[in-house]
Amino acid sequence: MTTGARSHCVALSGGVGGAKLALGLSRLLPGDALTVVCNTADDFDHLGLRICPDLDTVMYTLGGISNRDTGWGQAHETWSFLEALSHLGGETWFRLGDRDLATHVERTRRLRAGESLTEVTTALCEALGIAARVLPMSDDPVRTVVLTETGELSFQHYFVRDACAPTVSGFRFDGIDTARPSPAFLEALEDHDTAAILVCPSNPFVSVDPLLALDGVEVTLRRTGAPVVAVSPIVGGAAVKGPAAKMMAELGMPVTAVGVARHYRERDLLDGFVIDDDDAGQAAEIEDLGLPTLVTGTVMETLADRERLARETIDFARNLDSRRGDVAEAGSPEPSA
Amino acid sequence: MTTGARSHCVALSGGVGGAKLALGLSRLLPGDALTVVCNTADDFDHLGLRICPDLDTVMYTLGGISNRDTGWGQAHETWSFLEALSHLGGETWFRLGDRDLATHVERTRRLRAGESLTEVTTALCEALGIAARVLPMSDDPVRTVVLTETGELSFQHYFVRDACAPTVSGFRFDGIDTARPSPAFLEALEDHDTAAILVCPSNPFVSVDPLLALDGVEVTLRRTGAPVVAVSPIVGGAAVKGPAAKMMAELGMPVTAVGVARHYRERDLLDGFVIDDDDAGQAAEIEDLGLPTLVTGTVMETLADRERLARETIDFARNLDSRRGDVAEAGSPEPSA
Repeated sequence: MTTGARSHCVALSGGVGGAKLALGLSRLLPGDALTVVCNTADDFDHLGLRICPDLDTVMYTLGGISNRDTGWGQAHETWSFLEALSHLGGETWFRLGDRDLATHVERTRRLRAGESLTEVTTALCEALGIAARVLPMSDDPVRTVVLTETGELSFQHYFVRDACAPTVSGFRFDGIDTARPSPAFLEALEDHDTAAILVCPSNPFVSVDPLLALDGVEVTLRRTGAPVVAVSPIVGGAAVKGPAAKMMAELGMPVTAVGVARHYRERDLLDGFVIDDDDAGQAAEIEDLGLPTLVTGTVMETLADRERLARETIDFARNLDSRRGDVAEAGSPEPSA
Repeated sequence: MTTGARSHCVALSGGVGGAKLALGLSRLLPGDALTVVCNTADDFDHLGLRICPDLDTVMYTLGGISNRDTGWGQAHETWSFLEALSHLGGETWFRLGDRDLATHVERTRRLRAGESLTEVTTALCEALGIAARVLPMSDDPVRTVVLTETGELSFQHYFVRDACAPTVSGFRFDGIDTARPSPAFLEALEDHDTAAILVCPSNPFVSVDPLLALDGVEVTLRRTGAPVVAVSPIVGGAAVKGPAAKMMAELGMPVTAVGVARHYRERDLLDGFVIDDDDAGQAAEIEDLGLPTLVTGTVMETLADRERLARETIDFARNLDSRRGDVAEAGSPEPSA
């Protein structure tokens, strides 16, 4: 079996870590060969504006206008709006830059005019010169609620306003039962041209799980012909960015790459796993879960890191696919690393 | 008769010229002795935000944050939002500065939450440390439509987008039949404590006439105990700022202070008129209309100019009031200048 005919790659992404890998992918693949599906359960309405943090981070990153220091927001940002809003006694806990604000205002205007979030995102990406297809996971609202020891918090209140301080006991995705995945999302997963489905090194609980929880996504991932590979967001017992490690500890899980692998493997969603060189000692344990494991540098500091990890992850997935074809009758793929 | 007991001044204002006189008044009078009622027929919804140009110009001017070079918008303004919006293919013909945007976002948020425009304006003025009372003319939408030789235009399309180029044939104030004046507006006009009602040097057609056209305003102005004095926006055959002179010419009116005086006098709304030294030759003709006329410097370049014109106009009105008391039985006030 050859995979030469398959060329498309689908990346499931949250914010910063996902955007880095998506950027690497976008530099390897032609625009029509890459679909990035973004979590929208972090979205919220603030000051009358629809804000989609993960979509924006991916758009800004692929559009070459992201702030590389913060990992979120735009480069060359100014803060006059927020200063003036503070002067007026408005809410300023969510840091809205002046350039960033244009995205929220234009998106909100288009949504009110009746466009779907998928349509709006396509228009914004076109304006930003982004060749890859960027999709929201759904056109319907899904909102992560963080269950904490002191009560329920909307995601942005937990994440930004309270700086992830409350102890987490679980999550709820309001709207998940009625939200439909963006049609292009399921189509991309099922497409015979899809060579690999990559779960980016994003927060498993609040970035990836909402995507997976949409009706039809998990079952499609299990039956699709393309290999599904995740990159661990946990390296050396810590999250590269964000609260994933803190959440794992508070949920009583081991804060390890193995913990992440098990989280996905329990639901039979993966065909392979990618961990950092730092965690090479965990490869055998992950493979014992039935997950072929690639060990490589996963911390993407430079653009070259992003491209290399993207290339290695695609090659790993393609190789899995090829092996899966070869050993289909054996039914248990061997480790490839 | 003495007017010592009366201390309150009500100013009817459009944008730039009105804001200048309002600033002069605000420096002479305690905050609780000045009400500035602003035209809201220029207001419009743009990018999903409620924009109130005249209210904003007055608020920014009284709050000490106005841009003195442009006459509109805020000082120390930045333009990142508009640049980014342009990059996204959004509408950029209306120049929204980053600081200015905070006003529109906060106002729109409060309006959507159910506050009236009067309540929102009071809150914004309080945040900006404005002691005087600033009122929208109405909490209900009134929208100026400019009738031109090439068709009807919403006011901001005429004024900003098309830079006042179309030839004007008339005006219509959509919503004027059902809009109620802000209750505090009529109360201020009728208040026994009101010593003077000043019509600022604002555009008679699109800034002052909408205020006057609200149900009950003209009849209240005719019966109120306080003198009503207007300051001419036309000086030396030109408007100090804006399209008033161009409009007068296109409407077939003489482009003179007399033309403005006649415009108000026809409706029996004024007790006195203030014109510039440049137009001293027109004083006799205006007085022949039955309007006592003050001739002074009305072009407000410096802060001292604003204060002086405010003081002279108040004194003129008080003197008229005193004379009106004195000569009440004669029924025809004499010129005071």
